[in-house]
Amino acid sequence: MTNNKFIWVVKVGGNVIDHEQFLYSFLEKIANTNQKIVLIHGGGKLATELSKKLQIETQMVNGRRITDKETLKVVTMVYAGLINKNIVAQLQSFGKNAIGLSGADANLIEAHKRITQDIDYGFVGDIDRVNSSFLSDLIDKNILPVIAPITHDKKGNLLNTNADTMAGEIAVALAQEGHTVNLLYCFEKKGLLLNVEDENSVIDILRLDEIEKLKKDGNIHSGMIPKIDNCTHAIKNGVAKVIIGHADEVEKILTDEKTGTQLIA
Amino acid sequence: MTNNKFIWVVKVGGNVIDHEQFLYSFLEKIANTNQKIVLIHGGGKLATELSKKLQIETQMVNGRRITDKETLKVVTMVYAGLINKNIVAQLQSFGKNAIGLSGADANLIEAHKRITQDIDYGFVGDIDRVNSSFLSDLIDKNILPVIAPITHDKKGNLLNTNADTMAGEIAVALAQEGHTVNLLYCFEKKGLLLNVEDENSVIDILRLDEIEKLKKDGNIHSGMIPKIDNCTHAIKNGVAKVIIGHADEVEKILTDEKTGTQLIA
Repeated sequence: MTNNKFIWVVKVGGNVIDHEQFLYSFLEKIANTNQKIVLIHGGGKLATELSKKLQIETQMVNGRRITDKETLKVVTMVYAGLINKNIVAQLQSFGKNAIGLSGADANLIEAHKRITQDIDYGFVGDIDRVNSSFLSDLIDKNILPVIAPITHDKKGNLLNTNADTMAGEIAVALAQEGHTVNLLYCFEKKGLLLNVEDENSVIDILRLDEIEKLKKDGNIHSGMIPKIDNCTHAIKNGVAKVIIGHADEVEKILTDEKTGTQLIA
Repeated sequence: MTNNKFIWVVKVGGNVIDHEQFLYSFLEKIANTNQKIVLIHGGGKLATELSKKLQIETQMVNGRRITDKETLKVVTMVYAGLINKNIVAQLQSFGKNAIGLSGADANLIEAHKRITQDIDYGFVGDIDRVNSSFLSDLIDKNILPVIAPITHDKKGNLLNTNADTMAGEIAVALAQEGHTVNLLYCFEKKGLLLNVEDENSVIDILRLDEIEKLKKDGNIHSGMIPKIDNCTHAIKNGVAKVIIGHADEVEKILTDEKTGTQLIA
């Protein structure tokens, strides 16, 4: 490791990526900050749409895509190709030197094919190791890594990998290398809501020991549960701050104006 | 620049990429050499096949694909996603640390949309500048760059770019940085043939001043003409050696056993 840095790991998902204009505006906001950022993007609806056009059946179980051989080709094309390179080209147009990577590139993220219990998820990866020193080197050179949710198993197989989990593991690996790391999950709401029907009932600060109650009360439910579990994992493993906030407010969040829900130990 | 290195720039095209087993074997051979390599790959038939499935019409003029907006999406997915990441994952499985890049990544290759004369090629890029120092840094770290034939214009547009030309320009840029650079175009034949019908009539050494005669006599024709023009450009601009050789013989060529056609000034 070279020197301790202050790094933001930012995850952005389908709610932004699926809308060209939102994505453009989001990337411009990111480029406007002078923060050191690692951006992880999800896939959104594009892969499902392409699968449909190619008459490949998309199967989802517990919010995760079953990835057969043909679906793996589709997500590799859409995530690591179309979305990743367009994000990079946009950032370059805003004067931000970005580089698009999958987990196979520079052996960034090693994973293994998920061990099947009841469900065979197919070519889905669970992360073993993040080569964070390569990311540190890029950040040192003022290059912004843009990472697609595809990993590899070092046996020649690419693996479809959950982008939320990936963001968490990257943040943890950078923290364990000695950097001060904040993790931001961009969300379609302003944060975690105390009352799902009231957009203004954002929980400002959430302590880890309050999470169980919120799960029981239904404030944290379905798709939010694994997201929150990733947040908890990050906090417990050295990440300084985890924020769940609205993608529109990314510039404010990165420049430390308090907004969104902040998780603390 | 750090230190002067000896680098092979290798271009591999559709004749290898289109056949899973050939590609696998080719990459294994590359990984077996201990050379410092930059690999540039073309696209092959996969993009055409995907376009067909998506009912996007493929138009070719003078061996170049007309790239409308939908076709650009297809080539970005296939070249920078599917092919690029699979090559990287394969190389990783052979213990070679590779990184897949498009010209947008780390601002590696800036280009401009081809200026239209009679034909509108659409989103096709002509190269302005290669950021070879980033490649040098990767090579210094024993990382093998694998480059897809997609560039960008710094205005947010990706551009479909000829892989032969890209290989030539990358070789020239590395040579002009002070490295000793050899350029290898992998071919489906053992080299340039004096008699097209005799596979064993390979021209060992070809001087630049002999090229015009071979063009006139029809030994260099159609698709070979731009390829040879790229070779000539490379030799004239500081590349040490240009070889046209059979992809099957890549290991021999890279370890300096004489095979293929060598172009000299």
